[in-house]
Amino acid sequence: MGAPAPELNSRLIQLHAEYARAIDDGNFEAWPEFFVENCLYKLTTADNYAQGMEAGVMYADSRNMLRDRISALRVANIYERHRYRHLVGLPVVLGSEKGVIRSEAPFMVVRIMRDGTMDLFATGRYLDLVEESKDGSLRFRERIVVCDSNRFDTLVAIPL
Amino acid sequence: MGAPAPELNSRLIQLHAEYARAIDDGNFEAWPEFFVENCLYKLTTADNYAQGMEAGVMYADSRNMLRDRISALRVANIYERHRYRHLVGLPVVLGSEKGVIRSEAPFMVVRIMRDGTMDLFATGRYLDLVEESKDGSLRFRERIVVCDSNRFDTLVAIPL
Amino acid sequence: MGAPAPELNSRLIQLHAEYARAIDDGNFEAWPEFFVENCLYKLTTADNYAQGMEAGVMYADSRNMLRDRISALRVANIYERHRYRHLVGLPVVLGSEKGVIRSEAPFMVVRIMRDGTMDLFATGRYLDLVEESKDGSLRFRERIVVCDSNRFDTLVAIPL
Repeated sequence: MGAPAPELNSRLIQLHAEYARAIDDGNFEAWPEFFVENCLYKLTTADNYAQGMEAGVMYADSRNMLRDRISALRVANIYERHRYRHLVGLPVVLGSEKGVIRSEAPFMVVRIMRDGTMDLFATGRYLDLVEESKDGSLRFRERIVVCDSNRFDTLVAIPL
Repeated sequence: MGAPAPELNSRLIQLHAEYARAIDDGNFEAWPEFFVENCLYKLTTADNYAQGMEAGVMYADSRNMLRDRISALRVANIYERHRYRHLVGLPVVLGSEKGVIRSEAPFMVVRIMRDGTMDLFATGRYLDLVEESKDGSLRFRERIVVCDSNRFDTLVAIPL
Repeated sequence: MGAPAPELNSRLIQLHAEYARAIDDGNFEAWPEFFVENCLYKLTTADNYAQGMEAGVMYADSRNMLRDRISALRVANIYERHRYRHLVGLPVVLGSEKGVIRSEAPFMVVRIMRDGTMDLFATGRYLDLVEESKDGSLRFRERIVVCDSNRFDTLVAIPL
């Protein structure tokens, strides 16, 4: 139960907040820029994760794959039907080594339909490896998004 | 993706937390005190905001107007029917100039009815200009509350 | 509207985040360890709390009582039916004296059923007295969990 340096905590909070903001603003092109070049991004369910199953809902092991994903999303145009609102909870710093920070944060996403109805879209946790880039900014080396529910809208097109 | 000074982040978090707490405690008289004298408070929807439409659900351009709003609310007595719970997400600091900080934070509000049922009442984001008062405390110069949904309970009487 | 030292804020955030994480991970045995030996834990409703009624949904005045509670939970096996996700909001520091910090934080808990459906399980606030242990870690001397709704699932078996 040790606590990280306030400066680190402050920067992590800012990283999480900017990530969620980019997605909720529909600024998807900014999304891959939160990751390092050779990153790992997985979106999976808690049951799959507990069973060590690799196959998830979404998988990318480079920033270019994330960019491709966004291009496909823009073509499909699915994202325009709804609005999303992320709330990222307080992050836990689990450790850090050689400038790479292991941390975890819970999240909740609400979907707002065009007719104004709102529903709980997803809850879960982010399992992150965060590193400091040469320009001094923090980026994700690894982000595993573990959703609590196994029931997925087949149209999960936006990044979580 | 720069990060603010930990000290500033810490104070902003405290400001957001105290604001939400005052409202959820029903301590509405404390609400105008979170603003400077010549403030701007707007409550609007994401669609209206995107279209640059000024007219919103609620508008006030001075602390006195906020106080009037609360007096009206106390007379109408509407607020007693429900309870509200705000969850304010991690704030993003977007910049600061001459002691005025531009920041943004997402929020989620749950309404709890007298019979115990709970529903998602609103989600959205706060677009803020925060300044340091002479007594050293932070106050809102401007707070624009942009709700994600266009569907508004006609009884939106409490401040958001 | 003063703000706490960034270092304290950072440690409080870490404490809240680790507490929520332990429960949501089903790591209930870790839960009593967030409290000091002679602690007070109460789970109650907003109406009961406002009326000064002591009787709540759950009461424990030592860490051993919390451990007993967890043992009973493990035997009953009720917790396996669902998954829970806590989101703890930004904490407010209300004061501190002789190393004991009085603070408050709002929370929201979503329950995820085995079939994947999600619902708002509880909202409320934590009223805390936090103290620094001899090993330098923060622990709860007192945690009063005040739920907004009076309607309780009779199976509230997990800690909140």
